[in-house]
Amino acid sequence: MKTIVDELRNILEPSKIAVDQPTLAAYAVDQAPVLDYQLPLAVVLVESIADVQAVMRSCAAHGVPVVARGAGTGVSGGAHASRGCIVLGLERMNRILDLNADDETAVVEPGVINADLNDAAAAHGLMYAPDPASFRMSTIGGNVATNAGGLRCAKYGVTRDSVLALDVVLADGSLIHTGHQTFKGVAGYDLTGLFVGSEGTLGIVVGVTVRLKYLPREVHTIAAFYPDFRLAASGVLAVGRARVQPAIMELLDGGSLAQLDEIHGSDLSSRGASLLLIQTDGFGAAAEAEAVREVLAAGGATVTTEASAEAEQLVELRRNSRGVEVDDEYRVGEDVAVPRSRLVDYVGTLQELAAAHQVKLKVVAHAGDGNLHPTFWVDRPDSTVDEGTMKRLNTALDDSIAVALEMGGTITGEHGIGQYKLRWLGLEQPEPVRELQRRIKALFDPAGILNPGKAI
Amino acid sequence: MKTIVDELRNILEPSKIAVDQPTLAAYAVDQAPVLDYQLPLAVVLVESIADVQAVMRSCAAHGVPVVARGAGTGVSGGAHASRGCIVLGLERMNRILDLNADDETAVVEPGVINADLNDAAAAHGLMYAPDPASFRMSTIGGNVATNAGGLRCAKYGVTRDSVLALDVVLADGSLIHTGHQTFKGVAGYDLTGLFVGSEGTLGIVVGVTVRLKYLPREVHTIAAFYPDFRLAASGVLAVGRARVQPAIMELLDGGSLAQLDEIHGSDLSSRGASLLLIQTDGFGAAAEAEAVREVLAAGGATVTTEASAEAEQLVELRRNSRGVEVDDEYRVGEDVAVPRSRLVDYVGTLQELAAAHQVKLKVVAHAGDGNLHPTFWVDRPDSTVDEGTMKRLNTALDDSIAVALEMGGTITGEHGIGQYKLRWLGLEQPEPVRELQRRIKALFDPAGILNPGKAI
Repeated sequence: MKTIVDELRNILEPSKIAVDQPTLAAYAVDQAPVLDYQLPLAVVLVESIADVQAVMRSCAAHGVPVVARGAGTGVSGGAHASRGCIVLGLERMNRILDLNADDETAVVEPGVINADLNDAAAAHGLMYAPDPASFRMSTIGGNVATNAGGLRCAKYGVTRDSVLALDVVLADGSLIHTGHQTFKGVAGYDLTGLFVGSEGTLGIVVGVTVRLKYLPREVHTIAAFYPDFRLAASGVLAVGRARVQPAIMELLDGGSLAQLDEIHGSDLSSRGASLLLIQTDGFGAAAEAEAVREVLAAGGATVTTEASAEAEQLVELRRNSRGVEVDDEYRVGEDVAVPRSRLVDYVGTLQELAAAHQVKLKVVAHAGDGNLHPTFWVDRPDSTVDEGTMKRLNTALDDSIAVALEMGGTITGEHGIGQYKLRWLGLEQPEPVRELQRRIKALFDPAGILNPGKAI
Repeated sequence: MKTIVDELRNILEPSKIAVDQPTLAAYAVDQAPVLDYQLPLAVVLVESIADVQAVMRSCAAHGVPVVARGAGTGVSGGAHASRGCIVLGLERMNRILDLNADDETAVVEPGVINADLNDAAAAHGLMYAPDPASFRMSTIGGNVATNAGGLRCAKYGVTRDSVLALDVVLADGSLIHTGHQTFKGVAGYDLTGLFVGSEGTLGIVVGVTVRLKYLPREVHTIAAFYPDFRLAASGVLAVGRARVQPAIMELLDGGSLAQLDEIHGSDLSSRGASLLLIQTDGFGAAAEAEAVREVLAAGGATVTTEASAEAEQLVELRRNSRGVEVDDEYRVGEDVAVPRSRLVDYVGTLQELAAAHQVKLKVVAHAGDGNLHPTFWVDRPDSTVDEGTMKRLNTALDDSIAVALEMGGTITGEHGIGQYKLRWLGLEQPEPVRELQRRIKALFDPAGILNPGKAI
């Protein structure tokens, strides 16, 4: 019997399939810690819906797992290779098929880079709102797979809120279209929402229809330095109580400021122990910014008098703060979210946990959403793994998850479960809810070939 | 063997169960045309989650259908009684269980009236954004069942965008909790989104956690009269091209203005053949209103110089324009949506269809969303049904649906499929997509007792 690789060679041009070790290794993992390292059998770089259907039909016939992949910038391991799998790379399907400025919608292939869609939209005074920090690298398909968030979510919503319709190749190779081209539509069950965030476990997204929003004509950015992290977190609540809705509300602790200083030669650390970066936009941006400045100053912040342009540079630094990091077993970035009222308590808890377990900590947060990205790490040992050190790190991680859940939070606000966070999913969702999801998975993928071991 | 009604009498207090004919008749239908009139076996008015679980367990044991019902204000027949069913009325479960002003969330029982939640939220400077025209009567549970829209959706999104978590009693009487208390959360599949809009066919929603938005501190309302309906529709596109996002953008044709005049003694018809009502809100409301006035005036509108308060009264008239109507077989309100760029063509088509088939027409539209509510009607015949008349009415309805779909639209933007729109669902969704939904339905409700004959 032919192997799956033989068969794929028959149905795809040679330029679309790779089995050399460097390519297999490059596509074996995304940017998350790896719990179960596997090399794929092959990497296929598809260029059309027909390619995807052909690959799925072959893999279904052979019972071979398929891991869909965009740019591989995920940080939960949703695109890590599964054992004996084909990695289905969608990066070459990168055409913007339609952008209708009057409809305020676009139809894109899954491999379109988020920033490229935004550039195209900007020419029409429009934007694609979800802006994960990876937006210059990550693909719309990958964003859909994780229901990606970003900086502007507090005001503009997450990926799911911008996705109107999907084209999806199912496990058997058949193609369906879900959703509607209109802003609103309630015919039948929300299959579109079911695929968004399902991390390639229910089908392969091969086309995405998105709603675009208006590019704000005016943006004001405020940098507020605080002597204390908890005080900065309380600033988030104060802005909320003033009933002002910023587009961006990013919170950085001292560790994050020190890191930015180290990378960029800035002197943020000398200006405070924590930074709250707030951006207002739209016709009311100036008035909103003024209201924000007032409540932050009243709450103990040093609100910079610098020009908005300088504060905007800080937002750019924040956006790119992730660029240099790839998590591994010694350095784990989390993605918890807590109800906003618990923000202050939670950042305090994080600091206590880091101190108690003697691990390093830095925190950035999409604070308007209560979504925090604490990174806990220990120095990488020179040779053998120090089990005590690893235990301290893992205890800090587990404890931080437990406290977030106690506060009514979630283990993942926007990065997805992937492979790495499966260990905590049972703490958030009881067995009956998980069983329902397994049954939905079985309905779409009875043979279990779509990204096994991920998401649920 | 005991009947289901005997058993329900055993498990529920007498005050919670009714079998008298007037009550059965009152709960047999909602506000939609009826295709298959059925009296329920009994009406149960539950007061707790335990009540709902007990009813579901009994009905599951007896294989008796259950039709969940809020206020019965639906206009697609989603709450019409199914043959041999129990109507499960949730109107007494009307407590706001929690409203956390710092979290900007509320937890409510399904029978809470939309306006009551808004009143409670307003005390904290907050609002529950989805505002169907029925908001003074309809319940949050009913809004969830249909994924209700409303006037403010263009800016603030539909029900699904405001629902964070649900408590749901499944067909077997078990209780699950889906979603997250936080603004963002991507753990597992989006079961919450699957239940929203499922019209009581997958489970009974017994608790809803919603995100609240900020009550705008400033609102400006603009009334723009046009000599022509198509010209008014083009005003919607002009505002879009100016990249201004109003909170409300309602379009009314001459028939709707005449009706308002008749009910309220106003003189709107003398001021134009069509009215575009636009409301801007928030810190930028005044500047946005000024930009809107400019583009509308340039597009041929007579933009009223009247005070915003007077234009706001028109919005109130619009909100209440539905109050006096109950559709029947001679008068059918539709709920199509089309891509915004097709609005002008579509309203022209509606007028042509009404003329060609000699039926009466009035149209109101949530024009910012491309969501139109044309009502076609014929005079109610005195005695026998005139088959030719009914055929003309149904042809106009069918044709208007066909054209909307040809333009890339949907048969229902916000009212749901219910019972009445099932006849058109196959035109919008091909068999494989419908079959997937049937399989999801079978997964949640293998015996098919939850609102059979509706939604999918």
